[in-house]
Amino acid sequence: MKPRVSIIMGSVSDLPVLEKAAKTLCDFEIPFEMHALSAHRTPAEVEDFARNAQPRGIEVIIAAAGMAAHLPGVIAAMTTLPVIGVPVKSSLEGVDALLAIVQMPPGIPVATVGINAAQNAAILAAQIIATGDPAVSEKLKTYKEDLKTKIVSANEELKSIKFPFKTN
Amino acid sequence: MKPRVSIIMGSVSDLPVLEKAAKTLCDFEIPFEMHALSAHRTPAEVEDFARNAQPRGIEVIIAAAGMAAHLPGVIAAMTTLPVIGVPVKSSLEGVDALLAIVQMPPGIPVATVGINAAQNAAILAAQIIATGDPAVSEKLKTYKEDLKTKIVSANEELKSIKFPFKTN
Amino acid sequence: MKPRVSIIMGSVSDLPVLEKAAKTLCDFEIPFEMHALSAHRTPAEVEDFARNAQPRGIEVIIAAAGMAAHLPGVIAAMTTLPVIGVPVKSSLEGVDALLAIVQMPPGIPVATVGINAAQNAAILAAQIIATGDPAVSEKLKTYKEDLKTKIVSANEELKSIKFPFKTN
Amino acid sequence: MKPRVSIIMGSVSDLPVLEKAAKTLCDFEIPFEMHALSAHRTPAEVEDFARNAQPRGIEVIIAAAGMAAHLPGVIAAMTTLPVIGVPVKSSLEGVDALLAIVQMPPGIPVATVGINAAQNAAILAAQIIATGDPAVSEKLKTYKEDLKTKIVSANEELKSIKFPFKTN
Amino acid sequence: MKPRVSIIMGSVSDLPVLEKAAKTLCDFEIPFEMHALSAHRTPAEVEDFARNAQPRGIEVIIAAAGMAAHLPGVIAAMTTLPVIGVPVKSSLEGVDALLAIVQMPPGIPVATVGINAAQNAAILAAQIIATGDPAVSEKLKTYKEDLKTKIVSANEELKSIKFPFKTN
Amino acid sequence: MKPRVSIIMGSVSDLPVLEKAAKTLCDFEIPFEMHALSAHRTPAEVEDFARNAQPRGIEVIIAAAGMAAHLPGVIAAMTTLPVIGVPVKSSLEGVDALLAIVQMPPGIPVATVGINAAQNAAILAAQIIATGDPAVSEKLKTYKEDLKTKIVSANEELKSIKFPFKTN
Amino acid sequence: MKPRVSIIMGSVSDLPVLEKAAKTLCDFEIPFEMHALSAHRTPAEVEDFARNAQPRGIEVIIAAAGMAAHLPGVIAAMTTLPVIGVPVKSSLEGVDALLAIVQMPPGIPVATVGINAAQNAAILAAQIIATGDPAVSEKLKTYKEDLKTKIVSANEELKSIKFPFKTN
Amino acid sequence: MKPRVSIIMGSVSDLPVLEKAAKTLCDFEIPFEMHALSAHRTPAEVEDFARNAQPRGIEVIIAAAGMAAHLPGVIAAMTTLPVIGVPVKSSLEGVDALLAIVQMPPGIPVATVGINAAQNAAILAAQIIATGDPAVSEKLKTYKEDLKTKIVSANEELKSIKFPFKTN
Repeated sequence: MKPRVSIIMGSVSDLPVLEKAAKTLCDFEIPFEMHALSAHRTPAEVEDFARNAQPRGIEVIIAAAGMAAHLPGVIAAMTTLPVIGVPVKSSLEGVDALLAIVQMPPGIPVATVGINAAQNAAILAAQIIATGDPAVSEKLKTYKEDLKTKIVSANEELKSIKFPFKTN
Repeated sequence: MKPRVSIIMGSVSDLPVLEKAAKTLCDFEIPFEMHALSAHRTPAEVEDFARNAQPRGIEVIIAAAGMAAHLPGVIAAMTTLPVIGVPVKSSLEGVDALLAIVQMPPGIPVATVGINAAQNAAILAAQIIATGDPAVSEKLKTYKEDLKTKIVSANEELKSIKFPFKTN
Repeated sequence: MKPRVSIIMGSVSDLPVLEKAAKTLCDFEIPFEMHALSAHRTPAEVEDFARNAQPRGIEVIIAAAGMAAHLPGVIAAMTTLPVIGVPVKSSLEGVDALLAIVQMPPGIPVATVGINAAQNAAILAAQIIATGDPAVSEKLKTYKEDLKTKIVSANEELKSIKFPFKTN
Repeated sequence: MKPRVSIIMGSVSDLPVLEKAAKTLCDFEIPFEMHALSAHRTPAEVEDFARNAQPRGIEVIIAAAGMAAHLPGVIAAMTTLPVIGVPVKSSLEGVDALLAIVQMPPGIPVATVGINAAQNAAILAAQIIATGDPAVSEKLKTYKEDLKTKIVSANEELKSIKFPFKTN
Repeated sequence: MKPRVSIIMGSVSDLPVLEKAAKTLCDFEIPFEMHALSAHRTPAEVEDFARNAQPRGIEVIIAAAGMAAHLPGVIAAMTTLPVIGVPVKSSLEGVDALLAIVQMPPGIPVATVGINAAQNAAILAAQIIATGDPAVSEKLKTYKEDLKTKIVSANEELKSIKFPFKTN
Repeated sequence: MKPRVSIIMGSVSDLPVLEKAAKTLCDFEIPFEMHALSAHRTPAEVEDFARNAQPRGIEVIIAAAGMAAHLPGVIAAMTTLPVIGVPVKSSLEGVDALLAIVQMPPGIPVATVGINAAQNAAILAAQIIATGDPAVSEKLKTYKEDLKTKIVSANEELKSIKFPFKTN
Repeated sequence: MKPRVSIIMGSVSDLPVLEKAAKTLCDFEIPFEMHALSAHRTPAEVEDFARNAQPRGIEVIIAAAGMAAHLPGVIAAMTTLPVIGVPVKSSLEGVDALLAIVQMPPGIPVATVGINAAQNAAILAAQIIATGDPAVSEKLKTYKEDLKTKIVSANEELKSIKFPFKTN
Repeated sequence: MKPRVSIIMGSVSDLPVLEKAAKTLCDFEIPFEMHALSAHRTPAEVEDFARNAQPRGIEVIIAAAGMAAHLPGVIAAMTTLPVIGVPVKSSLEGVDALLAIVQMPPGIPVATVGINAAQNAAILAAQIIATGDPAVSEKLKTYKEDLKTKIVSANEELKSIKFPFKTN
């Protein structure tokens, strides 16, 4: 099984956030790998990783980091693969990480998702892969149906809550 | 020529921002279409567009909007294609648009780029297309080389600037 | 008993916030219904709801959502009923939800109340209904008197607190 | 002709913002009055106004103010009519006015619209009046259709813009 | 004993913050009174209080409020006494209260202290009273000396902390 | 004529902001002096000034500064006179100056007014002086009446503006 | 052993943050001293300290403070030694301290590190000392290698985590 | 003449900001070099530069960048020299650049100065060099005296401004 997605984190302390990405990729049956790499502590390893990702068959990179979160942008600088950035909240409510990931200069985009939104990063990775993979595309459609089912049943649940002037 | 990318804007007043996306897609020779659609004023047209985009062969959607920018998220809700969101600055320095696009709920990601960063949206679209299209992938590599060339020549230009204690 | 107000939430996890709206509507004896609907997960249901609300006799809609809170605006786009938006705090102190609800484009207002302010949403709904319903108008006047009574008795309570140089 | 809406501004310098509200109410043929009143400079006049608004037949109040914008909340405290607050941008991008209007304490809601969004304030006033006035309700439906027409023609306009790889 | 300072709070829930003001005034032996008054719930009582404060011999007013904190400004509008505003943190880290108190329009200043800084409000009140009262002025000088003594002894305490390379 | 108020600015570039304070003190016929002093560039002069202000008969100090605005707090540290801080907008919309002035540690308050609000600083100084000076107190009452007169005449002006559905 | 670095804190309550600076300097075997000094409470002691630091052989000063954090800037004003500022988080997520330290006026820089980043302050102090001290320079190189080792072993740890579709 | 300071900018468009750094270094007679390097466009050149800076005799690096400003941090990751970061304002008032530079992870400090504060960056560089260079140290002392002279003469200038109640 060859990985199609790389999940990169700046620190193992980001793992609790990124586990949701891992689980979601499993739901879509998309093989992936995980690495801890730091733009600041292991720049050479980051470069090795980024330059070899496409030749190794990786299709999408998910990179998460907190504070002055340089990792997603630095990886994006060294590959032409789409890089999805996950701002991790560790200070300032995550605003520092969000701005440090999304406000990239012209020429080097990072596809940024919400603060701590690792699950959405995985779904976005699946959507990108699905542009060339009908099986993943089908799974995404099922996934969307499930989202709907959940809220429909939540709606049912709401009906069981009673207030004197509630009519449904 | 069938479009592969759809550029959607909430208002024609966003066109000056999105022209950069159009020009960049032309640079990559990726056919695209442009539509003005409003999540709030033409919800039915938005839904028609979103539901038919994939069947029509669209691979990536770029959606731009300002203020309480719902358009990218609403389109993302109705398609499994990757949706790239461009926050347009029209109030509050663009912070309202950025947050209204990037902070999507679990299940419906929008690949957000920087405020007014339409050029980066187009490059990201090219990167997504390139995962299945070697010709675009090659163009992206050339593009990255050009980025480098420009800054190398900028560096040369700096050398011509003279200060008494400047040594290079 | 036909509902006059619809309380809509993006997720059942918003229920603890919205219970205050339900209780306050009960205090005003205004019949209401509650639904869980998602702008992103059940767009078709949202449209059905919004288009049929006025024909069904609904007079005001209260819609709550967090993060990139699109629900109130999307409903407002599909009805001419007044829509009251409640920003729910789930990230960024609720600032993302506030901006995503209040900064609507020209033509589609959302009557926004404070972050998590579901009680105020219900009072505002009562005030809107009261413009055509003298009974509710009377109840609002009594309610305002009660607000006053509470703070007057709080003031009494303050008098019982003793400090060496406190004179009252 | 008896006024149904009162437009209140804290200073005549807010008139350029509020003219859009006046024009929009004219479009809906809703009679209105305009007053300059200051929560801080003419508190007695504000109280007179607020207490007499409902007896005089006013149905909705639109109040605009900038900076530490107390006017909408102070009026809301003294009436049971719905009060629509318009934050006027005069410092800090309008954030101070927005927070000072929307973050009202429990019991005294202000229906807040976006920064400088006087047009939306008028539409919201029309929506509130329409709950008891089918003629205004019809005008709102026509208004929504017009919003749609404008963006549809904008979409046509977009088609006339040519780029080498633009397909529509 | 006639009060010289009035401490006004918008809600008894602000008492834990304001107790520090009460204790500090006791330290300076300045008689004071405490009232719970709400700009929004008891506007008439606020006006009564504000108009009679100076005739009753009050020299300074301390007013605390949270969220869209109108109380200090509304009192300042109805008196020529100096009004000290204390922003109380109850949402948005207290930023909403700070801006709603400090950003007053021209003509009606509020002497704003830091978020929850009730102790500083009392010291500022003492400083204002001291401009005409040498006894309070002396107490302030002693107070400043005590501030110094405390940090000097804290400095001594630091010396007892040992690290291998710490030299003092 | 002995000065009763000192206006201190961190830089002569703040003079256009502070001229309003000077003019307002003239309106109240309160003698004042002006100095340029920098917490960072002339700390010794700041200390001299602060320590001698009260002995020289100064009753209130107005201190203005921008960016990391330390001047008001540093002066407040060295005197027991009330110090009014004026945040000057020169970067970040003045938020840096506001926070650096208002968020003082316990023990050393600065009476902060709004961003660039030099006129309000002068009125607050007059209010502080008026606690012991009936003549200034009378002038403040007249000033408040004038504020009212201006808005009453503004209200008249509004009546002359015509819209088809405007009723007053 | 003569101290080369001075660690200054505005209050002993900042000690838990600054202990990391002390430990890090010990790791680099750089002798240091610690003082509690307050820009506002002991201005004379601050001046004594700042003026004598360089003559006493101090090479770098680390100054930490919270809220309206004046201490680093005030010290920087009175010495030509490099001053490293550490914003301490005690309110507003530390944003007030960050802005009050970093936004210094022209002429008086403070070398600011991140919020609560006392460890980085110590490393920066070591880097400054290392410009003239090859032994410290060597230790910094070793330190950087260790940073790398830690993340490499973290990367190993990641490999032990199993998910169904994880390939490494 | 061998350079002791390197001024690095992410784009030649930052030159107008950085010219102040160049001029200030000239004032201190400190030889320097200037390079345009991009963390994202020329990562290999950045690495070459960073790794060779110390061997080439560079003592301090000044790195400026805007938006998601990664350049200072990326350089700091690859050298043990002190790196001074200058946030350049190009969007969001410079807040994005400030946070992306100052909020570095543990182990890799960047000595951050204020937004656009290139002059202060140069003074800080001089202060760092002065720790081992008495000539530069003397120049810094003269520079501080000049700062004082300028404000003293500004103070004189203030005296010439006349207001009716101005006493000096």
